[in-house]
Formats: sequence, C-alpha cells, structure tokens
Amino acid sequence: MFRHVVMFRWNEDVTAEEVSATRRALDGLPALVPTIRDYRHGGDAGVNSGNFDYVVVADFDDVDGYLAYRDHPDHLALIAEHIAGRVADRAAVQYEVA
Amino acid sequence: MFRHVVMFRWNEDVTAEEVSATRRALDGLPALVPTIRDYRHGGDAGVNSGNFDYVVVADFDDVDGYLAYRDHPDHLALIAEHIAGRVADRAAVQYEVA
Repeated sequence: MFRHVVMFRWNEDVTAEEVSATRRALDGLPALVPTIRDYRHGGDAGVNSGNFDYVVVADFDDVDGYLAYRDHPDHLALIAEHIAGRVADRAAVQYEVA
Repeated sequence: MFRHVVMFRWNEDVTAEEVSATRRALDGLPALVPTIRDYRHGGDAGVNSGNFDYVVVADFDDVDGYLAYRDHPDHLALIAEHIAGRVADRAAVQYEVA
C-alpha cells in the first residue's frame, strides 16, 4: 500500500464556512478518483497546541495510484478552489506502508 | 476512530543508521502500548520535493486511547532517545475519523 499524508495550516482569514466547503469537496473526491482506496481527512481535534489545522490521509495500491490522484483534474480543481491561496503552511509525506 | 499523524524533518546530521534504529523502535511500540489499533510509519518515498522526511500514522478507538499512547512511558522513552534532538521540524494533527 502507498499512503499520501498532507497537512495544512490555514491562513488567518479562512472561515469555518470555507473549511466546511473544503471538507465537502474532499468527501467527493473518492467517487471521482478511482485509484483512491481509503480517504480520511479532518480538522485538528484541539488536543495539543502547535498543531496544523487539517490533515488528509489517502491510501492507494501503489505509487502509480497516488500519482493518478495527484495529477487528476478533479483533484487539481479542488486544490485551485479550496487550498491554493488559503494555506499558510503545508507539510507532506508519501510512503510505502507495510 | 481517533487518528494521530505526526511528521518529522530530521536534522542534517542524522544518519541512515539512526533512522533505521528509530524505525525499529517504532515497530516495537504497538506491543508496548495496548491502545494502539493501527500503526503505520515510514520515510518519505522521494516522489515530491519539499516533503518532510518521516511520518507516523497511529489509530486508536478514541481520544483517550491516543492520550494513553501520548503519555505512555515507552513512547516518551522512544521520543527522548530517537526524536528529541534529532528533529529540525515537526508537524502534527489529531482528528476524529468517520
């Protein structure tokens, strides 16, 4: 299995409504990108200080499945509408999962 | 389900041997911390530039399971031996998984 993990820290002016719209858009991606095997995203629970604001964990069969997602037009459209311009910081890792 | 995600960027002087020892130590944690339900960690695959170096994704039944892990002596000992002092940057999110 190949896993993609990405975290975002929102800009200070991003609203709860905008985050809700992002969440709904992310919820729609698995139906649009056939290589997604598991897709779990959500906002930080507030248990610890200093955390990022939002995380997406996406599982694929292999790196090619991830690349098909990364470059999928619906994924790129989501990034353009909901992520780009709203993110103060981003952290990502892709890795092979035993 | 409650998920903990943490990424690290190693200091420049951290060696491959040290990362291998960290990986083995992490592999041992699920046997020591009974609230862990799933534990998948690994080094960045090198597909994209600008990524962090290592990620841990840990699943628990609920936030209490996560807190038992966060504060578990074996976890704290691992952090003291393998993480603290070796990390240039850290990014974390904990979140409720539907």
